Amino acid sequence: MSVTGQFISFEGPDGAGKTSVLTAITDRLQRAHNQRILITREPGGNQIAEAIRQVILDPRNTEMDDRTEALLYAASRRQNVKKTIQPAMAAGKVVICDRFVDSSVAYQGAGRQIGEQAVYDMNMFATNGLMPEKTLYFDVPSEVGLARIKAHRETVDRLDAETLAFHQRVRAAYLRLLARFPERIIKIDATQPLDQVIEETLTTLNRIIRD
Amino acid sequence: MSVTGQFISFEGPDGAGKTSVLTAITDRLQRAHNQRILITREPGGNQIAEAIRQVILDPRNTEMDDRTEALLYAASRRQNVKKTIQPAMAAGKVVICDRFVDSSVAYQGAGRQIGEQAVYDMNMFATNGLMPEKTLYFDVPSEVGLARIKAHRETVDRLDAETLAFHQRVRAAYLRLLARFPERIIKIDATQPLDQVIEETLTTLNRIIRD
Repeated sequence: MSVTGQFISFEGPDGAGKTSVLTAITDRLQRAHNQRILITREPGGNQIAEAIRQVILDPRNTEMDDRTEALLYAASRRQNVKKTIQPAMAAGKVVICDRFVDSSVAYQGAGRQIGEQAVYDMNMFATNGLMPEKTLYFDVPSEVGLARIKAHRETVDRLDAETLAFHQRVRAAYLRLLARFPERIIKIDATQPLDQVIEETLTTLNRIIRD
Repeated sequence: MSVTGQFISFEGPDGAGKTSVLTAITDRLQRAHNQRILITREPGGNQIAEAIRQVILDPRNTEMDDRTEALLYAASRRQNVKKTIQPAMAAGKVVICDRFVDSSVAYQGAGRQIGEQAVYDMNMFATNGLMPEKTLYFDVPSEVGLARIKAHRETVDRLDAETLAFHQRVRAAYLRLLARFPERIIKIDATQPLDQVIEETLTTLNRIIRD
């Protein structure tokens, strides 16, 4: 890892609000850290990752096996690591990635029941061992997350349409990751009012980021 | 694995002639085994695997990382296992696949130097442990294989254009697989005249296939 760069991920179940928080804090975060922040989300805008994402999202591909999907997400992630995350870290940036390996462990490993360790190990092939230095985990009970999704979106995508049981498996996996990696993962209570979540996120990031 | 079906792979470096052999023996093999043979090569004709292959082969995607490529091949393989190989085996067919996991170990693991064990393990995620019952490995020295490719093809694809050193790493990896899995992998001397290779292949398959 670069001596100067840093790599931080945002994680959480759907409806936790992490993407809204990330959008809300960007300007203040950039000012506080001299415009050194790079916010990325997979596929991260590179052409190959976008092409892979199109295969995953193509509604004609309804016969996609769960492991195929997990491998495609990992392939897209690999490309994002090489083309966006590592170059930015090498240039001294602080990279904040909206979802990373933990999402695959929770969604594919536990949600789709492939197995959390198997998905984690396969993703270590993809990242060649690169993991975030710190992860902010935005936690909400599955019922709260699902209620927020239904209230805020007109169209419900494939994952959101899955059952409550699926979402409960996802959250349980996140809580297991939190227990397994207590040094890396910092839990943020995302049931708080949005303003409080935003302030807690900023305070936490300002503590983590090295200037 | 199904009680009745069988899964056999053909492996070897470019220029070993395995695809020519497979084409030459198909009719005689089908007659000998009551039309129970299914010959497949990745991506195996299914839509998702074809879409993945297009991402791999798109010449605009020159910035594809080696691990991304290995993950995409594994994703395509997974889909072929689920949609073609396992259903055929369940129906009592003898599936002969032109290239499988060993190709990734040899080409990506050794040729592109990702690491043979890492590529093998990642592919075990893709196949969920499924491996061929028997593998026919068509062996030629790299110089012979490369000379055949140059003599027989008008256009030379990306892998063929790589250096002799690449091909030597690939063959060395195949020989290591042969030493590691002596019960599974049967070596065929592909420097023999084509007629002899064909007869040896047929004899070997007729011994392996259970009627």
